[in-house]
Amino acid sequence: MFAKVVVIGGGTGNFSLLRGLKYYKPLELTAIVSMMDDGGSTGILRSEFGILPPGDIRRCLVALSEEAELFQKLFQHRFNGSLGQHNFGNLFHLALTQITGSEETAILEMSKMLNISGQVVPVTLQSVCLMAELEDGSIISGETNIDLPKHNADLRIAKLFIEPAAEVNPKAIRAVEEADCIIISPGDLYSSILPNFLVSGMPEAIANADALKIYVCNLMTKHGETTAYSAAEHVRVLHQYLGRQCIDMVLVNKSQPSPERVEGYIAEKSYPVNYDIEAILNQGVGQVVEADVMNKKVLIRHDPMKIAWELIKIIQDHKSAN
Amino acid sequence: MFAKVVVIGGGTGNFSLLRGLKYYKPLELTAIVSMMDDGGSTGILRSEFGILPPGDIRRCLVALSEEAELFQKLFQHRFNGSLGQHNFGNLFHLALTQITGSEETAILEMSKMLNISGQVVPVTLQSVCLMAELEDGSIISGETNIDLPKHNADLRIAKLFIEPAAEVNPKAIRAVEEADCIIISPGDLYSSILPNFLVSGMPEAIANADALKIYVCNLMTKHGETTAYSAAEHVRVLHQYLGRQCIDMVLVNKSQPSPERVEGYIAEKSYPVNYDIEAILNQGVGQVVEADVMNKKVLIRHDPMKIAWELIKIIQDHKSAN
Repeated sequence: MFAKVVVIGGGTGNFSLLRGLKYYKPLELTAIVSMMDDGGSTGILRSEFGILPPGDIRRCLVALSEEAELFQKLFQHRFNGSLGQHNFGNLFHLALTQITGSEETAILEMSKMLNISGQVVPVTLQSVCLMAELEDGSIISGETNIDLPKHNADLRIAKLFIEPAAEVNPKAIRAVEEADCIIISPGDLYSSILPNFLVSGMPEAIANADALKIYVCNLMTKHGETTAYSAAEHVRVLHQYLGRQCIDMVLVNKSQPSPERVEGYIAEKSYPVNYDIEAILNQGVGQVVEADVMNKKVLIRHDPMKIAWELIKIIQDHKSAN
Repeated sequence: MFAKVVVIGGGTGNFSLLRGLKYYKPLELTAIVSMMDDGGSTGILRSEFGILPPGDIRRCLVALSEEAELFQKLFQHRFNGSLGQHNFGNLFHLALTQITGSEETAILEMSKMLNISGQVVPVTLQSVCLMAELEDGSIISGETNIDLPKHNADLRIAKLFIEPAAEVNPKAIRAVEEADCIIISPGDLYSSILPNFLVSGMPEAIANADALKIYVCNLMTKHGETTAYSAAEHVRVLHQYLGRQCIDMVLVNKSQPSPERVEGYIAEKSYPVNYDIEAILNQGVGQVVEADVMNKKVLIRHDPMKIAWELIKIIQDHKSAN
């Protein structure tokens, strides 16, 4: 392998990055995923059967899968009726965990069956609950309640934490330590990205890693999590949870989405992130890269191929300079 | 391929036969399965989602699978709790049917994923209900109600039929017509074996086929279905539903199970089948083969390797004589 790359995140942004990067075979990819999801099918399976949240693991596995389209579709298939909106991939995860008696073995076996490029590593193997303290001192419990949000979304999140405290998965530490490049995915800051940094040992490992640390900044704000956050504010919060200013590079989209596309987001009070480049550089970030990494569909998302194209260029430049 | 073999049946006996025969690579195997099962997970999926009963298909697929043990275990895995005793393989069948929009495609895809030797062919692709008329004229509706049985099991089944009438799957006819050998599996006569002969066109196809027709007779009677049936009575009923005396050979076990093993069956009013060889021959059967085909475990079953060993010998003799 020519470069070891760790991608940290969750949700759709993470999926897009992995989807694009998997086509570059010389990369040795590790997707580190947070284990705090507790909504829908995942939530039911967690509380009833005591397994780790399968949702994000499943999405990463599918993103990295080289298996036939049908097998990937199968993993994402959502049932209806009495099957309570369960997702087939989640039930696959449950069945394999019950048979093998181990979450880690189940993930490895699914990785084989889905013929994935790289590996998917849960940030912790312990069951934890994501909690948020709002600026008025009230406490929100559970990732879904933070994500939706069910609270007064005009209140900012003052502090994010987990209960109980959890130890990091040693595989995640090893991948971070050995990485040439660590990419923090775009995604819901408080419900998908920061949860990875709440696991004991993880922020230090990232901050101290030799790797080039890139943050791919979100395209849109999320009401209740990052209301009116500029790019620099995203970076500031990331640094806060990472313990120190350690992000080397921020990748932002070159242009803003058209007003027509943004219109669809107004109802959700979601707006394009303001790319305040000077302010980002003032956070100790060495470089801000502006590139066209947005898709052309209705939903404003990172385009898997475009974002991978830019990231590969960055990784190659970094490797040849070192 | 050196011989085309069709196995018709359902349930455990069928599973044992297929399990043993799959190791003989020169065989081109077709498992024809009845589509009348309506119990448990299968029943829920049939009635709520309108799919064909996945249970017997799944068991045949697993019996013929060359895939790793874990994948086979996965298909047979039974959930608990809110997943309502569903079987993972059944949910696999449901998901693939929903995605591909076709039962046949779903079965083909599962066959590929499980890397099966041979093919599994539903006797019909129509949804039907198995019905039984008892000797007192009362009607029992549904395979499970006949199988359990919920009725007064001292009453004999006078007539077995399906509603609505169903057309045979053309693939089943083709396999029967091209077969060198047709094997009727041991199994619950009225709930697993005969249902295959209730589909329009199927009895004639079997009766008229050039193939050597072998019936592997049950080891034990089943209360409510074959109470006190001798081997010849099994054959008589098979011939009745096949339309004429067409079975060429009956394979019976050489010895009876030990009294200790039989004891465990007394509570179920299940007893060793009496092998009345003369009476079998009087049913137009050309030959009765006695062989050691029983397992040595607690449950009295056909041993997959022993039964396959005997059947292969018979098939080879038949092929070299023709």
